[in-house]
Amino acid sequence: MSNILRQQIERIVSLTDEEYAFVLSHFTSKKFKKHQIIIREGEYVHNDYFLLSGLMKSSHINPEGREHIIQFAMQDWWITDPQAYHNETKATLQVDCLEDSETLFITLENREKLCREMQKMEYFFRKKTTAGYIALQRRILCLISSTAKERYENLLTQYPGLFQRVPKSLIASYLGVTRETLSRLANNN
Amino acid sequence: MSNILRQQIERIVSLTDEEYAFVLSHFTSKKFKKHQIIIREGEYVHNDYFLLSGLMKSSHINPEGREHIIQFAMQDWWITDPQAYHNETKATLQVDCLEDSETLFITLENREKLCREMQKMEYFFRKKTTAGYIALQRRILCLISSTAKERYENLLTQYPGLFQRVPKSLIASYLGVTRETLSRLANNN
Repeated sequence: MSNILRQQIERIVSLTDEEYAFVLSHFTSKKFKKHQIIIREGEYVHNDYFLLSGLMKSSHINPEGREHIIQFAMQDWWITDPQAYHNETKATLQVDCLEDSETLFITLENREKLCREMQKMEYFFRKKTTAGYIALQRRILCLISSTAKERYENLLTQYPGLFQRVPKSLIASYLGVTRETLSRLANNN
Repeated sequence: MSNILRQQIERIVSLTDEEYAFVLSHFTSKKFKKHQIIIREGEYVHNDYFLLSGLMKSSHINPEGREHIIQFAMQDWWITDPQAYHNETKATLQVDCLEDSETLFITLENREKLCREMQKMEYFFRKKTTAGYIALQRRILCLISSTAKERYENLLTQYPGLFQRVPKSLIASYLGVTRETLSRLANNN
């Protein structure tokens, strides 16, 4: 199953078996149960998680207890609180499991060591982060310029299969619309 | 003035004079006039611009001609259409000058060459992109969870001095609020 990680890396740089074994030695595998909280607001964030299977979300819970979903992650996606992880500060987001999930995680220390010792991996993480930056900029444009219907259609494209796997209330929270608006969008589609 | 670039790089990695001269040899300097369009929708995007002075914005103009501002850039900021630049596709954004501006720009080819030949610069761009990713994620959170008043206050913090330099209509466009709402926010502050 850890081949999923190799496949992702090799879409950007090619690796020998020895190189991949070296990369993998910087990761730890860990399984989580549905509903388990991986990252809690206010705690330090040591790991960036690569999903081998399952489904997670990251969200911000405001003082009134209202949840705003930042991201879903399924197989082949990375998830953490990036600000807390990279800056070694306390989490402002929560990450939890919507399904039983298998992960490979990497600490910041191991990530930096890997990048230092293997420029191919520094290249990989640079390209991967650039792609993430572009995706977030598209999402911002979508948030400031699109109708709820366009946002809904973008989500369908970005996360195929998601609608069968998570409650409608979470989809509505990600889109920033009410349950009622979401039902209307889904029925018109 | 190109020392501004060196200062930014050296906040992340230290450089000898020879190394900085090598870095700088990958950049070209170019000046632009107020109102000049640097990147046009539908054209290929060859350069990423580092601002030495002046003020620019990037925006998306929808089919009805309505402008949505993605980003402002002032001294020490980078600006381009990142999707078009990194993926070598046609621009979907426009970048133009709100003031006369002096820049150092780098082509994608030179950026990749520099990263390949000097791992310090690959490290610099990886860290810089990670910081940009984190900033965009904060902006998304702000867009999906904050009130217009909170967004206004964030903007004041992120771009000090901006309010004295650009028309109120552009601030409103960045925040996704009407001119009237903006006036109310500014007066209550």
